[in-house]
Amino acid sequence: MPALRSWFNIPRGSHFSLANIPFGIISTATSESPRVAVAIGDHALDLEAFAAHNGFSALSTIQPYQAVFSEPSLNAFAALGRPIHSVVRKYIQSVFAEDTPYPDVLKNNSALQKDALFALKDVQNHLPFKIGDYTDFFVGMNHAYNCGVMFRGAANALNPNYKHLPVGYHGRASSIVPSGTPIRRPHGQFLPNPAAEEKVPVYTQIKKLDYELELGAFVCKPNKMGEPVPIGEAEDHLFGLVMLNDWSARDVQSWEYIPLGPFNAKNFGSSISPWVVLIDALEPFKAKGIPNDKEVLPYLKEKDDKTVYDIQLKVDLKTKSGSTGTVANSNGKHLLWSFPQCLAHHTSTGCNLQPGDLLGSGTISGTSAGEYGCLLEQTEGGKNSIKVGDEERTFLQDGDEVTFTGVCGTDEEALVGFGQVTGRIEPALNLGY
Amino acid sequence: MPALRSWFNIPRGSHFSLANIPFGIISTATSESPRVAVAIGDHALDLEAFAAHNGFSALSTIQPYQAVFSEPSLNAFAALGRPIHSVVRKYIQSVFAEDTPYPDVLKNNSALQKDALFALKDVQNHLPFKIGDYTDFFVGMNHAYNCGVMFRGAANALNPNYKHLPVGYHGRASSIVPSGTPIRRPHGQFLPNPAAEEKVPVYTQIKKLDYELELGAFVCKPNKMGEPVPIGEAEDHLFGLVMLNDWSARDVQSWEYIPLGPFNAKNFGSSISPWVVLIDALEPFKAKGIPNDKEVLPYLKEKDDKTVYDIQLKVDLKTKSGSTGTVANSNGKHLLWSFPQCLAHHTSTGCNLQPGDLLGSGTISGTSAGEYGCLLEQTEGGKNSIKVGDEERTFLQDGDEVTFTGVCGTDEEALVGFGQVTGRIEPALNLGY
Repeated sequence: MPALRSWFNIPRGSHFSLANIPFGIISTATSESPRVAVAIGDHALDLEAFAAHNGFSALSTIQPYQAVFSEPSLNAFAALGRPIHSVVRKYIQSVFAEDTPYPDVLKNNSALQKDALFALKDVQNHLPFKIGDYTDFFVGMNHAYNCGVMFRGAANALNPNYKHLPVGYHGRASSIVPSGTPIRRPHGQFLPNPAAEEKVPVYTQIKKLDYELELGAFVCKPNKMGEPVPIGEAEDHLFGLVMLNDWSARDVQSWEYIPLGPFNAKNFGSSISPWVVLIDALEPFKAKGIPNDKEVLPYLKEKDDKTVYDIQLKVDLKTKSGSTGTVANSNGKHLLWSFPQCLAHHTSTGCNLQPGDLLGSGTISGTSAGEYGCLLEQTEGGKNSIKVGDEERTFLQDGDEVTFTGVCGTDEEALVGFGQVTGRIEPALNLGY
Repeated sequence: MPALRSWFNIPRGSHFSLANIPFGIISTATSESPRVAVAIGDHALDLEAFAAHNGFSALSTIQPYQAVFSEPSLNAFAALGRPIHSVVRKYIQSVFAEDTPYPDVLKNNSALQKDALFALKDVQNHLPFKIGDYTDFFVGMNHAYNCGVMFRGAANALNPNYKHLPVGYHGRASSIVPSGTPIRRPHGQFLPNPAAEEKVPVYTQIKKLDYELELGAFVCKPNKMGEPVPIGEAEDHLFGLVMLNDWSARDVQSWEYIPLGPFNAKNFGSSISPWVVLIDALEPFKAKGIPNDKEVLPYLKEKDDKTVYDIQLKVDLKTKSGSTGTVANSNGKHLLWSFPQCLAHHTSTGCNLQPGDLLGSGTISGTSAGEYGCLLEQTEGGKNSIKVGDEERTFLQDGDEVTFTGVCGTDEEALVGFGQVTGRIEPALNLGY
């Protein structure tokens, strides 16, 4: 399919081509109230302003609902359902198309261009959703295997349930922050000498601060408590995807996680990319995931064998003193279970999901060292170090900035990208105790 | 301290004596919009109506904030902070006192009595808070020990971290429901034959449906992300307590919980009592918890040794055919860690808590069979059955109604009680697969 051409200047290589149209929440110097926008090339189209100036006059479907674009989150827009997301995206594509059937809406309307188009560098991104509940899965099988080998040896690396259900746990919603928010090195309780027979923990600055390369999926369609979502309907409950950095304190994690799972090791901050790429936009990049050699129960069985996405993922690190390096390349394909499977399983005992809930994939690793999605794997728990320019790292140091980049496709005029999610480590507080 | 006497008819033995004044959210036949109320004897005092009719005219502190009483949740009132909760409670006590200094406010004001006092049987209770995040701890040590013996044997019953930190995990906020909401028996993935070498799970109606007797604490004061709450300030971050039934699917739990903890086994529903008992009201019932024989780190060390509450807890079961029985008696004292310790630990890596967040204690069991807070413990995983009238139970059957009752004190004129939290099991849906 040839790239859609636009009358608008969309730079070659932009993640936000006409094939994408991701949604987010912005504010600007001239208007500080957060509102809905889409990203297009180097710009954001403010949909509140666009709607207010009759931008949607040719799209009768959306007219009763235009107030959703003035909301400070995407929750209300997402709750309108996937058919509405689809028509809005297609309409915006047609407004920007070179041969737009609606030239008077924006192409020939310089007043509205001035009021509604902002350079991305001039907009402030906010959290795209008010997140009710956050659930993190563990379906990056290569990561699960590598961690399992470290903790339990190769023979028992994957637990018996791993290939029968998408293993997941509830995460912390309050500490999910948009890209760019600094992450403070936490204090935490951990064992300074885990190998010692006597377990004497300390409470001090953590040493093993790590990132985790994940994808996140936002829920749009709710299900009632007590009513599981059938697997065939699960995809329509998803709004779109972001990149997710689930910052982790490995020293805290290994001490606290038995028997109820990770808690303080992961609830001090998780960062997400600000532009949510719609499920429709990702459709052309569907791919096969990691094959499952177990028979999957019917409530998790998908008709299609392409259920995950071919998203090229990259982790870059920049140190305080300016050394930079790409420390990992991975891909959204490296998942054993798809997001629709995760959602069907999540609701399988009747748990109610709501618009704005976030599902994380768990760390996404490839099969070789340069493809591992966290430092725990890359350094084998800190045993080896990796190169960042002419510096070395086992875990993150103060001042380190971690940036994930994700993009689908190779046609420089039709990329469907996520932009970036970035966060810099600030030194720990002086707690005085 | 002698009981406070009231001009208002508060029946002897009421949980909602003048010593209590718990807060909740109600609606009534005449006004369907949920709003703030307190319970007093057999009645609810509608604080929206009370405020609108100048009920707070003698309390200047609250006047700028009276809009909080028209909110559909306690979040805004709670966020005003403990000093405000204290003065509002004391003022309401003084309004109801026999020798009230404000007789014209309510005692001699039959019009306001008519507008603002509703019989509890005529009010609809709603969830008291909009719950952002829910965290469940596991600090009922007797329960943790008994479960540990079942799963790992007596020698390893408690994990090495157990006495060093309040073990907890993130729960599901969306499925927390007020007392009286029916709970549907879930389907779930589990092993029909866990002992078999080959692990072949099924997805069908769960068999091992259980209750868990817990207390829950609501957060009032937020902390910023990255900033732990010192233990000495932690109590002031708590608004008050409720009883919590954390319904559990034991067959799902034992299959899914390794390595990331309980997930679908506990996210299908949790019930809470509707009236939140303030921390101030519980103060006279402070008691010593379970002694900890480990040295506790300074960030968790409390000055006082009375940090939990002497709350008499009771579990009653009523079957579909009408058999009834008290199946357990326990007490709020049976905790290794207090809620302030749980909160200090929760924030120890910098996790931000917000007004309306809920912390659960975990199941609260005494030391003998009639004091165990769930059926898993009482029946040793279903090996033995318990008597309910002339029926027997290992786990819950359809139509069973579980009711928790909790009360502090023995003076029938000064009880500080929680009322009840109840839920009836509905048969599973016919999913057709």
